Amino acid sequence: MKKWNIAVLGATGAVGQEMLKVLAERNFPVGELKALASKSSAGKITHFGSKEIVIEEATDASFNGMDFVLGAVSNAMAQKFAPAITAAGAVFIDNSSAFRLDDNVPLVVPQINPDDAFKHKGIIANPNCSTIVTLMAISGIARIRKIETMVASTYQAVSGAGREGIEELEAQIKSEVSGEPKVSKIFPCQILSNAIPWIGSELDNGFTTEEMKMQNEGRKIMHLPELKVCCTCVRIPVMRSHSISVQLKLDKPLSIAEAEQAIATAPGCRLASDIDGRNYPTPLDTSDQDLVYVGRVRRDLINGDNGIALWCCGDQIRKGAATNCVEIAELLASKA
Amino acid sequence: MKKWNIAVLGATGAVGQEMLKVLAERNFPVGELKALASKSSAGKITHFGSKEIVIEEATDASFNGMDFVLGAVSNAMAQKFAPAITAAGAVFIDNSSAFRLDDNVPLVVPQINPDDAFKHKGIIANPNCSTIVTLMAISGIARIRKIETMVASTYQAVSGAGREGIEELEAQIKSEVSGEPKVSKIFPCQILSNAIPWIGSELDNGFTTEEMKMQNEGRKIMHLPELKVCCTCVRIPVMRSHSISVQLKLDKPLSIAEAEQAIATAPGCRLASDIDGRNYPTPLDTSDQDLVYVGRVRRDLINGDNGIALWCCGDQIRKGAATNCVEIAELLASKA
Repeated sequence: MKKWNIAVLGATGAVGQEMLKVLAERNFPVGELKALASKSSAGKITHFGSKEIVIEEATDASFNGMDFVLGAVSNAMAQKFAPAITAAGAVFIDNSSAFRLDDNVPLVVPQINPDDAFKHKGIIANPNCSTIVTLMAISGIARIRKIETMVASTYQAVSGAGREGIEELEAQIKSEVSGEPKVSKIFPCQILSNAIPWIGSELDNGFTTEEMKMQNEGRKIMHLPELKVCCTCVRIPVMRSHSISVQLKLDKPLSIAEAEQAIATAPGCRLASDIDGRNYPTPLDTSDQDLVYVGRVRRDLINGDNGIALWCCGDQIRKGAATNCVEIAELLASKA
Repeated sequence: MKKWNIAVLGATGAVGQEMLKVLAERNFPVGELKALASKSSAGKITHFGSKEIVIEEATDASFNGMDFVLGAVSNAMAQKFAPAITAAGAVFIDNSSAFRLDDNVPLVVPQINPDDAFKHKGIIANPNCSTIVTLMAISGIARIRKIETMVASTYQAVSGAGREGIEELEAQIKSEVSGEPKVSKIFPCQILSNAIPWIGSELDNGFTTEEMKMQNEGRKIMHLPELKVCCTCVRIPVMRSHSISVQLKLDKPLSIAEAEQAIATAPGCRLASDIDGRNYPTPLDTSDQDLVYVGRVRRDLINGDNGIALWCCGDQIRKGAATNCVEIAELLASKA
């Protein structure tokens, strides 16, 4: 069996660590494995399955001989290393937003637009985490109806801000009990017992960069250039699964039974029917696994028979980031 | 100055306690004050301003001589005592949902439909807490445009489930730190680090009772019988302020500047412009006070110039319940 040389770029972060975990869990046919990070982490030990690996400093020379580079770094770092990665002949599967809307870069969710992956010119972009979870939830419906509009309000986990986001919420929980002052460095204000309707930076239209990803990336992934999305992104004190309240307007009527059937049979989705007696998922239910759970499927009260409302949850670090990147690599490997 | 005899029915709960606090804070001209509760609380001491008052068991005889009875009890208790309250000649300002949609009972937010209050026949209903916060936020816009549709996703505090809801979240925070198992009695599953898209009970259309209140009560309060609302109600680990992500479709175009002006000048509302450098509110910002804060006012990307999206937060126990009840009493007292 062919083996593939893989580098994880940004191996010390929450997503990079999960990439190593997912590669091991799924028995990806790994040949050489490199865990790359900044100079300050070089020499530290991390793990790949039961093996210890030494973290190396990422340099332009790091990518020679690699087949895939899974990127879990900032836009600036992704842009810095992309030329060296492609020059080395590796495929850069990048979780940053740097290349997502580039016409020369496919933006891929393997369960939705796998064919796009094979049109790459060295770089494949991994979509935004809330976008992946939402599009997975509606992917079954999108197969049988054209989605015209979507209103989405997100309930996003602190893991979306990386390891430091998780640590900030954990520290605030401890401070709440000990009575010490709560420190906010990663989020604009206290996240414990709060909801912060601000993720990313503000655009001229009043939306944030995070909110516009749902429309812009959704259009590209679903091949729906006219899709209109009105999204509100909100950070809540949840550790690692994102949830989204979604209202869809379709081009043609769809019964609730048909919608539920479409969701239940969509790859990577689970229609919640009995989770400890509940017929809806919560972010705790979907943490540390790869499926996107969908519930509360019902007839929207505004758009008549063309309207569907639903609720979905998915692990931000896994399907929203690391797992989707590994699945893209698996897809390319399967056809090689 | 005329004084008014007031009974608080359900004086030991989160809302009943806040009613006593708000009456004292606002120097409501109180004559005799009764704190009524179930037999098990009778004889206990509670406070009204600096005064101690002894809690009495609520019986049909409790209401003789009262001018106003502020109700903070269950639907069943509200229905049980309503005949005795009205027979005693008191006005029952009831926070339960028992009478809200009764054609003979006005449903009142004093800043929105004050005239309705004076049509009462002994009972005035206080609206649902999320509904009050949302309608307050859009009240300025509703004055200058007809609202045709609203998509609302809520981020509801645990206080909506009463004192026990707050205590359950507080206990789970402590258990998280101590490592003890987390106990869920009030909510269907763990609320700490979670989001539960289920409040109230399920109706045939797949919505919950809580979700339908936004449409049904909104229609009655705003005198918009054809208003269509698609609401998703979600409990999040926040103590006492509700937040709502709202998308409105209006009958005619409205500029963002006009919308912001309408919000900024609406009684009881504050347009967030600089809260510690942020131009949006969070539920922590709006706790323990009476204003509804609005931010993120922007052009909805679906409905063109007729579409507005916004975010609002308000204290569930105060404006969402206790303060609104006291304001209704003040309104009646002011015209007596």
